[in-house]
Amino acid sequence: MVNHDQCMNLDPVFELIGKKWTGLIIHALLKESKRFSELHTTIPSLNARMLSERLKELEEKGIARRTVYPTTPVRIEYGLTEKGKALEPALLELSKWADDWIHE
Amino acid sequence: MVNHDQCMNLDPVFELIGKKWTGLIIHALLKESKRFSELHTTIPSLNARMLSERLKELEEKGIARRTVYPTTPVRIEYGLTEKGKALEPALLELSKWADDWIHE
Repeated sequence: MVNHDQCMNLDPVFELIGKKWTGLIIHALLKESKRFSELHTTIPSLNARMLSERLKELEEKGIARRTVYPTTPVRIEYGLTEKGKALEPALLELSKWADDWIHE
Repeated sequence: MVNHDQCMNLDPVFELIGKKWTGLIIHALLKESKRFSELHTTIPSLNARMLSERLKELEEKGIARRTVYPTTPVRIEYGLTEKGKALEPALLELSKWADDWIHE
């Protein structure tokens, strides 16, 4: 059973993954790092400006990481940090709940 | 690993639990049903109007239930439906993540 203190630390988590698109971006990066264009294709209804904004926020929060490969042309990939990957169990439980209760 | 279809059904879930206060209200009701005043005390920074609004939304979504006991005075309690209680595993995982990564 989740106790009261656990409850209070949930607020920032809800705020984080509740922000429009954030949860989907984290999920899209769980399997592998992706380039901006690949991410943009994975979530078509998300415009480029918003995707860029959300990625910056996720970097600032230490959940996503941006890697620049010095190739020609330069290759930039976005991936999850350990902190980001650690969200997978919660995403799985949320997805199971959605399967059971939203798509009955 | 969470696959692509699971991803798409996550959007409504993020929207649901991401809405300010909703996650905390669901969590507060996990242990037992509560009266409005008890709920209000459990989440002090949440004003009564917003709590009432969120409870109505949760009722409409079939996640919370309002029970009126015909005592004198009348007693009204809010509790979770099966659908609401089924969110507990996800809340537990989110809480574990918060413990590990937000309150390092």
